[in-house]
Amino acid sequence: MKKLEQMITHKGFVLPGGILKVDSFLNHQIDPDLMKDIGEEFHERFEKEPVTKVLTIETGGIAPALFTALRFSVPCVFAKKEAGANLSSDRYMTEVFSFTKQHLYNVSVSKEYLNEGDSVLIIDDFMANGKAVEGMIDLCHQAGAHVSGIGVVIEKEFQDGGRRIREKGYHLESLACIRTMSDSAISFRIQKDEDLI
Amino acid sequence: MKKLEQMITHKGFVLPGGILKVDSFLNHQIDPDLMKDIGEEFHERFEKEPVTKVLTIETGGIAPALFTALRFSVPCVFAKKEAGANLSSDRYMTEVFSFTKQHLYNVSVSKEYLNEGDSVLIIDDFMANGKAVEGMIDLCHQAGAHVSGIGVVIEKEFQDGGRRIREKGYHLESLACIRTMSDSAISFRIQKDEDLI
Repeated sequence: MKKLEQMITHKGFVLPGGILKVDSFLNHQIDPDLMKDIGEEFHERFEKEPVTKVLTIETGGIAPALFTALRFSVPCVFAKKEAGANLSSDRYMTEVFSFTKQHLYNVSVSKEYLNEGDSVLIIDDFMANGKAVEGMIDLCHQAGAHVSGIGVVIEKEFQDGGRRIREKGYHLESLACIRTMSDSAISFRIQKDEDLI
Repeated sequence: MKKLEQMITHKGFVLPGGILKVDSFLNHQIDPDLMKDIGEEFHERFEKEPVTKVLTIETGGIAPALFTALRFSVPCVFAKKEAGANLSSDRYMTEVFSFTKQHLYNVSVSKEYLNEGDSVLIIDDFMANGKAVEGMIDLCHQAGAHVSGIGVVIEKEFQDGGRRIREKGYHLESLACIRTMSDSAISFRIQKDEDLI
């Protein structure tokens, strides 16, 4: 998605440790027009899937997930990060290791909002090692729900999350796929629809 | 806002301690069509204000704030909840007491995204004792920004946050204002535009 890549190039910062900061339009200040376009784009890429629900994890995934859910006319559910490991019979819970924060945390979703028969489109802001998405896949499996697709706004191709998840057979789409990045330059994988230009 | 009141009545639950749970359309599962309507409604109520930015606090406020920001064509900034009290020279920070969780936490916003000259519309999901909104007002004051209005999705009129903030002269609008609630019934303040019906 060209508009997104341009914003990453012009407004993103690469921090030591392979962290890409996009706080000016995605993770702290949000550009609502961009989020609307992202929702349109995910809808286009997954419109053949029978989506009944969009699932994400708070907080970074909420904005893109919400506009995607709007376009599909389905509810958006966000899994909650839990401070402790409070197991509860009315929630599905899984563990996620955060690459950015370098710690393990629990995420959970109420059993009311993820059901057998749901066809779930998982949306997240970032994919590095893929642990957050794998956590959401696990939540869907616990619920007996079908994962109909996975959309991430920014994928770091040089980490192995995307490869691992595609190898498992999931339909994974990323709107900007970063090949390499340093504090002076960011390069993207050329997207299919841009090959023709 | 009639549609919102009906959803609260039909899908909300009142828990002991005066907590209203609206997890099925606002705080865990989000109804994106309702959020779009909420954005329209806040735009209508504040359209005379020269809004340059919408400010909220993660997580519950993000959805209504985002659609309001979209309608005003301005950025949406969400203040972040901080685990510790890490003072940093590049962030404005304030303390907020959460009525729902009964504890004190810090919220902060990067100085980059809140500026002198900004005319800020503060949006939040709930107002009970008003502490979250007062925290956001404080962040705006620290930045030298003007608070042009405050919009809350659900106000609990029987707690004193709304009264206190209106007495200070702020233009505060709530889309559903709860007069009384118990586990068997919820009553709303009649809104001005509904007096005529």
